[in-house]
Amino acid sequence: MSIPLSIKWNGQQLTILDQQKLPHLIEYVTLETIEDVYEAIFSLKVRGAPAIGITAAYGLALGAQRHETVSLGAFQQYIKKDVSYLNASRPTAVNLAWALNRLQDKVSEATNVEQAKQLLLAEAIKIHEEDEASCRRIGEHALTLLEGRTKVMTICNAGSIATAKYGTALAPFHLGSERGRHFDVYACETRPVYQGARLTVWELQQSNVDVTLITDSMAAHTIKAKGIEAIIVGADRIAANGDTANKIGTFNLALLAKAFNIPFYVAAPVSTFDLEIEDGTAIPIEERNPEEITHMNGRPIAPLGTKVFNPAFDVTPSQLITAIITEKGIITADYQKNISRLLAASIRKGEKI
Amino acid sequence: MSIPLSIKWNGQQLTILDQQKLPHLIEYVTLETIEDVYEAIFSLKVRGAPAIGITAAYGLALGAQRHETVSLGAFQQYIKKDVSYLNASRPTAVNLAWALNRLQDKVSEATNVEQAKQLLLAEAIKIHEEDEASCRRIGEHALTLLEGRTKVMTICNAGSIATAKYGTALAPFHLGSERGRHFDVYACETRPVYQGARLTVWELQQSNVDVTLITDSMAAHTIKAKGIEAIIVGADRIAANGDTANKIGTFNLALLAKAFNIPFYVAAPVSTFDLEIEDGTAIPIEERNPEEITHMNGRPIAPLGTKVFNPAFDVTPSQLITAIITEKGIITADYQKNISRLLAASIRKGEKI
Repeated sequence: MSIPLSIKWNGQQLTILDQQKLPHLIEYVTLETIEDVYEAIFSLKVRGAPAIGITAAYGLALGAQRHETVSLGAFQQYIKKDVSYLNASRPTAVNLAWALNRLQDKVSEATNVEQAKQLLLAEAIKIHEEDEASCRRIGEHALTLLEGRTKVMTICNAGSIATAKYGTALAPFHLGSERGRHFDVYACETRPVYQGARLTVWELQQSNVDVTLITDSMAAHTIKAKGIEAIIVGADRIAANGDTANKIGTFNLALLAKAFNIPFYVAAPVSTFDLEIEDGTAIPIEERNPEEITHMNGRPIAPLGTKVFNPAFDVTPSQLITAIITEKGIITADYQKNISRLLAASIRKGEKI
Repeated sequence: MSIPLSIKWNGQQLTILDQQKLPHLIEYVTLETIEDVYEAIFSLKVRGAPAIGITAAYGLALGAQRHETVSLGAFQQYIKKDVSYLNASRPTAVNLAWALNRLQDKVSEATNVEQAKQLLLAEAIKIHEEDEASCRRIGEHALTLLEGRTKVMTICNAGSIATAKYGTALAPFHLGSERGRHFDVYACETRPVYQGARLTVWELQQSNVDVTLITDSMAAHTIKAKGIEAIIVGADRIAANGDTANKIGTFNLALLAKAFNIPFYVAAPVSTFDLEIEDGTAIPIEERNPEEITHMNGRPIAPLGTKVFNPAFDVTPSQLITAIITEKGIITADYQKNISRLLAASIRKGEKI
């Protein structure tokens, strides 16, 4: 039993966990070319914003090694094309563009092609390592907040396999398991795509964490019947005032946490903050394919042609959030002030956000 | 388009809608013998407490017609055996025992076997007709409460096909449709068994009601995004203080209704009250097969051997209920007092509850 990793770099080769086959098959595939990486992201073998960014970074670096030219200018043109190519694999993933830009910037520091190739690979490895360290710090902070609490509920998969290691919302459970600290985790199945049932349950089992699966509809009854002491979730995007977009169902849980007077924590790296968005009303909510709800394994559940509302995310107003747990520290209300203060401090330290 | 019926008696023959095949096949089957009726209830072709009671009553009456004896004593022995037999088809359904007892009482009024057979059939028809009338009155009362509101959310299937006609929580939508009153109904899919997706969506479509399917996890976002104006649900059992056991997920919705300050209505016939149960803490909550959550159509979703919590019902505290809508009138807080007052008035009028 150990914390499952979705991305492995052995110094030569990139292998990734095919998350489409989980939990029934645990299959790692080797990605050798930039085309392999494109396909792995496009076909959702890799998922989770940080994991996508890391994989794409390795993809760009791997592709770069094969460009046979001694002209730095020609090399830069190749890289530019590769970046556009990889960016198209999953256009809405912000971490993808962010990681690729970070690598592209490195090329301009090089004085020859060989050095550029080395810098690209080194930067991909750095992004990978930084993400692991960042998740680990989120886990440490979360463990502090969860001190004295063992029964915790979560939704979706803000987990190790969505990041370099540890995850965000699931980081305290993995760290706790390493240290012999017991948690009793209740995982909401997370309709319509079942990330809770398929991924979180599997991931926590691998790490020897005690995890119980419930349907999303059982949250209120479970909080009461099992004495849930906290809820912890990830985030897709956090506005300047702390309003948080995350997997559909998160807002439900935040309202239940308030009703039961238990803490509701959001765990996310600071790269999740989008200060250009003032509050949650400005966060666009993607509506997805009705068949995610009306069908299962290709077979219909509801009558054919049923009218469906299928928002992929919801927005939890910051007043419902007890704390936002980042790698740079724990933020509480007043979020508007404290988020910008935390980010400003990081920028002063010269860190990349 | 018309309100779908799950039980039809044409004076000679009993036909029922096979609810196991909904919504993909709309198939009525004729039940000719008491064994046919047993099988239909046992295999869940008939579901919904009132519908089970009505079907069982016809089953007992149909079986009685075949008993060839002129001895009233012998006939009563046959009936007693038949009642035990049918009672075993779905032991937890209170309406089943209630309907069968009501028929059995009729036999004691007869002076010969022929008359007993007629009384049994007449009583089955009466139970059937009374349930339709009762649901219609619930619908009328609900329409009054929903005056000026069009966007309403519901869960599970407290519908026409669970009763003689109209249903309880769905009765106002069917009646509204008959009268050209528009409702915009949001049906929660109702995990784990999908009664919302499979049954409520189909039933309301048949009745030309505008219905949109959502997952249970989308309730909070939908209430906010679509401006839901009320929530209406059925009930499995209501304690003396108004605490209400209903399909798992109901308690979630009641807490959301409170958070959004919209009314939360429970619609149920007075036979749902169980005055021997003081409050919700004394209502037993059945836990069902983990495979309802871990599997779909026989195929696993979660890892094999996953630990599951699968309560079939939850209990909504009466403080969260705006009103309980019965065929005998609308009850609001103080529930303890007002429930016993309503029931006492019915008993004074000599009605069977």
